[in-house]
Amino acid sequence: MGGRTREYCILFSFLTLLALSSAFQGKKQYKPCKRLVLYFHDIIYNGKNAANATSAIVAAPEGANLTILAGQFHFGNIAVFDDPITLDNNLHSKPVGRAQGLYVYDTKNTFTAWLGFAFVLNSTDHQGTINFLGADPILAKRRDISIVGGTGDFFMHRGVATIMTDAFEGEVYFRLRVHIKFYECW
Amino acid sequence: MGGRTREYCILFSFLTLLALSSAFQGKKQYKPCKRLVLYFHDIIYNGKNAANATSAIVAAPEGANLTILAGQFHFGNIAVFDDPITLDNNLHSKPVGRAQGLYVYDTKNTFTAWLGFAFVLNSTDHQGTINFLGADPILAKRRDISIVGGTGDFFMHRGVATIMTDAFEGEVYFRLRVHIKFYECW
Amino acid sequence: MGGRTREYCILFSFLTLLALSSAFQGKKQYKPCKRLVLYFHDIIYNGKNAANATSAIVAAPEGANLTILAGQFHFGNIAVFDDPITLDNNLHSKPVGRAQGLYVYDTKNTFTAWLGFAFVLNSTDHQGTINFLGADPILAKRRDISIVGGTGDFFMHRGVATIMTDAFEGEVYFRLRVHIKFYECW
Repeated sequence: MGGRTREYCILFSFLTLLALSSAFQGKKQYKPCKRLVLYFHDIIYNGKNAANATSAIVAAPEGANLTILAGQFHFGNIAVFDDPITLDNNLHSKPVGRAQGLYVYDTKNTFTAWLGFAFVLNSTDHQGTINFLGADPILAKRRDISIVGGTGDFFMHRGVATIMTDAFEGEVYFRLRVHIKFYECW
Repeated sequence: MGGRTREYCILFSFLTLLALSSAFQGKKQYKPCKRLVLYFHDIIYNGKNAANATSAIVAAPEGANLTILAGQFHFGNIAVFDDPITLDNNLHSKPVGRAQGLYVYDTKNTFTAWLGFAFVLNSTDHQGTINFLGADPILAKRRDISIVGGTGDFFMHRGVATIMTDAFEGEVYFRLRVHIKFYECW
Repeated sequence: MGGRTREYCILFSFLTLLALSSAFQGKKQYKPCKRLVLYFHDIIYNGKNAANATSAIVAAPEGANLTILAGQFHFGNIAVFDDPITLDNNLHSKPVGRAQGLYVYDTKNTFTAWLGFAFVLNSTDHQGTINFLGADPILAKRRDISIVGGTGDFFMHRGVATIMTDAFEGEVYFRLRVHIKFYECW
């Protein structure tokens, strides 16, 4: 019947609409399209540990030197790092890549940092880079920074990374747990 | 009738097409999906104002020191800052957050800077961070930088920020007006 | 006939679905929506070339100075640059803009850098800025960094840039070829 057919037709149009709109919303979903949990390990150069150190203070405000983090919550220190990335929290595990870039201590009355760095991954599982940027209120248990781009396996990806301080030994070693959540995958 | 029904069918398909394609284009519209106007205030450390200063020169080219901006349009100076953000242009208004990161003077024959910083907002209206990156031709009345990501209330946002120098007092204080326009909201 | 019409109807729905889903995927295509090939030229300040230099070392780890790149693969050096951008590989061609920002040498046992900079284009062809971020394994023939935003003609653009070292003269001059591929154009 014409009438019945028309109903089918309307039904099909609606289903089409529904399927597409869900696909459409699905693109920018709030559930990550890809996840990774990685650790990186930072050993700060203190004038005596040249062989082991993976980072160095390279800038400081007037009156501070470069072998010890500045007073006033290290305000003004910039450190450059090349830290091993591991799959678990063991510094001696086989690295799957390097975390490279800088952190900048940027508050006078508490510990916070501005981070600009890349994960350069080079393992059987992942080949490519992930670019991070953001404010790090170090003393908070969890803090989120932005993932603003990527290359290789992470071509054009965007997302958010949740950072936790997994260990902290004096002012020489710290280890960060990075939970990477991509919300735009290509 | 079969013929009439077919026409309806075509019509429905077209309407579906139309509705979806407009929704589709609507996602990346050129009208901001969210706007904010905020001010931040920078007081540069000059060796005498440790209590008030909100930023410090931490790097400079050979021959320059860290208590006065370098000659040649401050070329090569990197300053780290932790500046209060206010809703109006009054330095003494209650801050709604902090602007944290660095600016880099990067031209020898005029005033320009490269900016990498975050707005860390913590007020009843906004909780979250906004990540900025871009070239700042300081002497231009308006200049645009990129908003490359965000967290919290600004989860995954992208946009453009228009900066204006709202006040400038010698080489110790400046205030920027930041018109934030998000074009990708989540 | 009702049956035939229904078939048409299904067919139309499918075609609609097909057309839209291809439009949908087309947005995030893997073929660039815009391409540019540009060169930039970096002359590092060495204490003697103040007139010609376009970049300067402004930060270094303890024990290094600022007129010569640090030992250990320059680890810890930060250089600020304001480099001319040209359409071909000739340093003396008319610049179409400036590459401005910083590079950070970030490995102790090979040459790698972290890059944060902007292309500020100002020519008859292009007006606007492009923001780059990424890890640069300098010795690799081709390496990809992220394009995380833009303004003006490059409003909200994202993409990937492939960098090649086009020339390298001692530790004073280098020239990079930058193949810009935008995958999100607005």
